[in-house]
Amino acid sequence: MLEDAVGLGAVTVLGILEQAYFSLQVIYARRKYSVSPPTTAGPPEFERIFRAQANCSEYFPIFITVLWTAGVFFSQGLSSICGLLYLYGRLCYFWGYSESPQGRLAPLYFSAKVLWVLIGFAAAGVLLSFCRVYLNVDLVETICSGLGLF
Amino acid sequence: MLEDAVGLGAVTVLGILEQAYFSLQVIYARRKYSVSPPTTAGPPEFERIFRAQANCSEYFPIFITVLWTAGVFFSQGLSSICGLLYLYGRLCYFWGYSESPQGRLAPLYFSAKVLWVLIGFAAAGVLLSFCRVYLNVDLVETICSGLGLF
Amino acid sequence: MLEDAVGLGAVTVLGILEQAYFSLQVIYARRKYSVSPPTTAGPPEFERIFRAQANCSEYFPIFITVLWTAGVFFSQGLSSICGLLYLYGRLCYFWGYSESPQGRLAPLYFSAKVLWVLIGFAAAGVLLSFCRVYLNVDLVETICSGLGLF
Repeated sequence: MLEDAVGLGAVTVLGILEQAYFSLQVIYARRKYSVSPPTTAGPPEFERIFRAQANCSEYFPIFITVLWTAGVFFSQGLSSICGLLYLYGRLCYFWGYSESPQGRLAPLYFSAKVLWVLIGFAAAGVLLSFCRVYLNVDLVETICSGLGLF
Repeated sequence: MLEDAVGLGAVTVLGILEQAYFSLQVIYARRKYSVSPPTTAGPPEFERIFRAQANCSEYFPIFITVLWTAGVFFSQGLSSICGLLYLYGRLCYFWGYSESPQGRLAPLYFSAKVLWVLIGFAAAGVLLSFCRVYLNVDLVETICSGLGLF
Repeated sequence: MLEDAVGLGAVTVLGILEQAYFSLQVIYARRKYSVSPPTTAGPPEFERIFRAQANCSEYFPIFITVLWTAGVFFSQGLSSICGLLYLYGRLCYFWGYSESPQGRLAPLYFSAKVLWVLIGFAAAGVLLSFCRVYLNVDLVETICSGLGLF
């Protein structure tokens, strides 16, 4: 079954490549601004790139977790599309933050919104599965018939 | 099969919501103590909240990984219960650390113990699966019959 | 099916134990060099151990994600072997970095190379699955027969 989750797998691979790209940018910035490890303090240009990568890395496991939870329990298609939007938002965030602290805000809010949508999908999916597995109730059908939809 | 892992899915969604709550607290603390990104240094009150969130974020992927490994290879029910205990411990840790460096210790030790239990479940589960899949031996049955339990 | 992924499960448990070992080293270093939380600055010996653990933690979710993506979509055996090599590389990196900033470089390049191999496996596996599921084409067979291999 898991092998059929091609959409989630593809978004996951893209997400890993994006993280690799961010890590490489930090390595280049370390060279450019002569900030040798283990130091993480330096000129603001370096610190912005460092923090942008750190922030994306911090959210990466949350993103992957919620992507797969929403994909498995709710809808692979919708989750994959949200995943692509999130990765696009993170790329804009990284580029924006590299330019100025202000430049990170719009894409940060965008990717946060997409993440909330994915969290909503995951929560809804787990709730629906719970009702189906433990209460033997198909919630979607119950609500639709309650509303007179079929 | 994975859709039936409702317990693990529910703990996962709760864990993500908890991380979202911690992230929001850091954003509020940044405003309250006027610490603008990319700076991460500030008054001790801010630094404690920042470090509390950073520590929880650092352990989040380990927690999710061990939760699902223990849940899939050992027992979904036991892993889900441990998962809830861990998330409760992390909440107490965050609140305790926000108050004082001392306040973080008791819940930190508690959540570390729960994590070790989950690691034990995961290791036991992988070992049992290894014996069943590659050695064709049901270790639980072998030990029980060796002890004269059945 | 997932319970049969014993190799991936075993590498995952080993990876978690390695992360636990790194975390314990930071706790010991905090005591040895008297660096109390939330401070993360201290003598270079402490900062190197702190950064080594932080770097391994940062890469841990990427490693686990790519390990399972490559294992599920490409080959469990090859992914598990690469996983073991990566964990070995990270151990050498941690020990090397604890000694000197220079000591981290060789094992860091090694583990980065192994990670790229895993990323390659994951990408290839997702591509092959995509062709099989959506295009109904077995790419391996097509290429082999195109090359006159069978």
